[in-house]
Amino acid sequence: MAENTPPAVDIVDLSLEEVRALALSVLRKAGLTETQAAPVAETITLCERDGRASHGLLRLPGCVMTIESANFNLQAEPEVSEPSAAVVRVDAGFGYSLPAFERGLPLLEEKAKALGVAVLAINNCFHFSALWPEVETLARRGLAALAMTPSHAWVAPFGGIKPVLGTNPLAFGWPRADKNPYVFDFATSAMARSDIAMAGTKGETLPEGCGLNEQGNPSTVPAEVLAGAMTTFGGHKGTALSTMIELLAGPLIGDMTSRDSMEFDAGEKAAPCHGELIVAFDPALLGGDDPALNEARAEALFAAFTDQGARLPSQQRYGTRARTQNTGVSIPRALYDRITELGGERATQA
Amino acid sequence: MAENTPPAVDIVDLSLEEVRALALSVLRKAGLTETQAAPVAETITLCERDGRASHGLLRLPGCVMTIESANFNLQAEPEVSEPSAAVVRVDAGFGYSLPAFERGLPLLEEKAKALGVAVLAINNCFHFSALWPEVETLARRGLAALAMTPSHAWVAPFGGIKPVLGTNPLAFGWPRADKNPYVFDFATSAMARSDIAMAGTKGETLPEGCGLNEQGNPSTVPAEVLAGAMTTFGGHKGTALSTMIELLAGPLIGDMTSRDSMEFDAGEKAAPCHGELIVAFDPALLGGDDPALNEARAEALFAAFTDQGARLPSQQRYGTRARTQNTGVSIPRALYDRITELGGERATQA
Repeated sequence: MAENTPPAVDIVDLSLEEVRALALSVLRKAGLTETQAAPVAETITLCERDGRASHGLLRLPGCVMTIESANFNLQAEPEVSEPSAAVVRVDAGFGYSLPAFERGLPLLEEKAKALGVAVLAINNCFHFSALWPEVETLARRGLAALAMTPSHAWVAPFGGIKPVLGTNPLAFGWPRADKNPYVFDFATSAMARSDIAMAGTKGETLPEGCGLNEQGNPSTVPAEVLAGAMTTFGGHKGTALSTMIELLAGPLIGDMTSRDSMEFDAGEKAAPCHGELIVAFDPALLGGDDPALNEARAEALFAAFTDQGARLPSQQRYGTRARTQNTGVSIPRALYDRITELGGERATQA
Repeated sequence: MAENTPPAVDIVDLSLEEVRALALSVLRKAGLTETQAAPVAETITLCERDGRASHGLLRLPGCVMTIESANFNLQAEPEVSEPSAAVVRVDAGFGYSLPAFERGLPLLEEKAKALGVAVLAINNCFHFSALWPEVETLARRGLAALAMTPSHAWVAPFGGIKPVLGTNPLAFGWPRADKNPYVFDFATSAMARSDIAMAGTKGETLPEGCGLNEQGNPSTVPAEVLAGAMTTFGGHKGTALSTMIELLAGPLIGDMTSRDSMEFDAGEKAAPCHGELIVAFDPALLGGDDPALNEARAEALFAAFTDQGARLPSQQRYGTRARTQNTGVSIPRALYDRITELGGERATQA
């Protein structure tokens, strides 16, 4: 090693194929069938590829905890039904949400393109990671799409101090010709729970306004907020939006709220178990006579952001993606070691 | 008058019938047909009834300005079409949105109950006031519903300083058996534009974070913010939500963004002209086998708010409504005088 080389950082470099192999081997070893393991490993890989480490390999230990929990069904096979010409329902059977999404996707696309709007209701699924890969997939098929789920009752409503709501993510995708789709995916809590946990691990404090301690007083100490209550973003408006998600991806589709999900977990600390609502809209059917004008108007809106230096929400992810597809990614050695202890193997199994 | 009577406050007491008669007479005098005048007067009355003065009679002078603007079509009759079994389109013909909503409502309800989800796309409508009456109407018919519109490009995106987005309201309604529906309706701007204008009239300053002056620096002076740029609520998340509304109630349904609408207005200061998207969901079709359980779960969620003293978003409006239905309302005499100058008459015309 040359004298001027900086000291070796304690990281491990991985190709995206190695990320996928690591994830797959851990998930298989934990007992997942191929139906469940493949789409979960895929989303982990996509999150690492896009620089979303908090939703990537870091999730594997939690996955193992979820898979080993009493409520998880190792034999789960998603079951598709069609309550109407506009609705696909997939019963995930107490497996992960992702295989259910995959199974429902072709019908959702078909129905949305036939009718202009369609709904995919996923029931009895364990939550997995980010929703943006789902709305991005729909947008790449030409559909605008919304996705939302409850989670666990960790978040106090505006004006209250006791946790009632989940971190309830909302994701949205919009198709763009010859460009990456416009995509956002945000937690309706002021901070993502994983980011609060990560701040705790690093010994950092939180920004003001992200949570309350068990006495209901504002706190910036991660451990206190995790034991007390998180808050929603945007005051009463964020609380309203989060409540809407509870209702639409819960009771509307015959599934649990975040409070129900937490009770169902009974302290096992598995991932939230809930429903997911995806609504897909077809611009080709809904947009009327002049699709080129519609596209020009949407593109002018995006340009009015970027021309003044305001970022589109998915811009950073796409930038990282363009890089990591060639370079692969780096993860902390401590995480790598933890994954290999769980049975992770870098080489793809035949 | 007894000696101890407090000095007469400069207000005028009105029954709700008198509110409606005032609104109707002004709108008719300005040239509106019954098709247009009746639903606009109705919404003004509902806003006064529910204590939403900023969206009530106060809007009449602006209505007259809109009605007299070059783009407004005094002969507008909403035209209904059915692009698919799940979609109702109503071309408002450059009249108000409210008659178009009324015209599309029966088909939207029918389609949502047949299919579980349906869309009402209103095109070429001038914006009028609040969206909550529409989602409340749908919720009273047993449907969960979302409504959204762009407005005028008054709001800078997070990370920018130039106005691009509208104040883009989002409204949501959820049906509750034997109870008033759960309803929210909020601007995705940090403050409603009418509230900023009202603060200016009263000589008040704004809370921090609601806007920027023309140089792009934070300002709490109403006039500076009205001339510069408003901001979205909730930082980048509010900006994302507002952008979604631009796209879904704009290019998705073949209509204008807030930027287009402002250009279309060409400085006339009429109300925004745009599209409106309403999505209705039928819990009876989507909810599966146990509607009583779904209802119990939703009600337990609401109880977890109110039991700890957190308010449900529509609670205050319903409280005011219960009162004003008997007592009527009071409005400032200055507003009353302005309305009579516009031709307002208190007695209902035969």
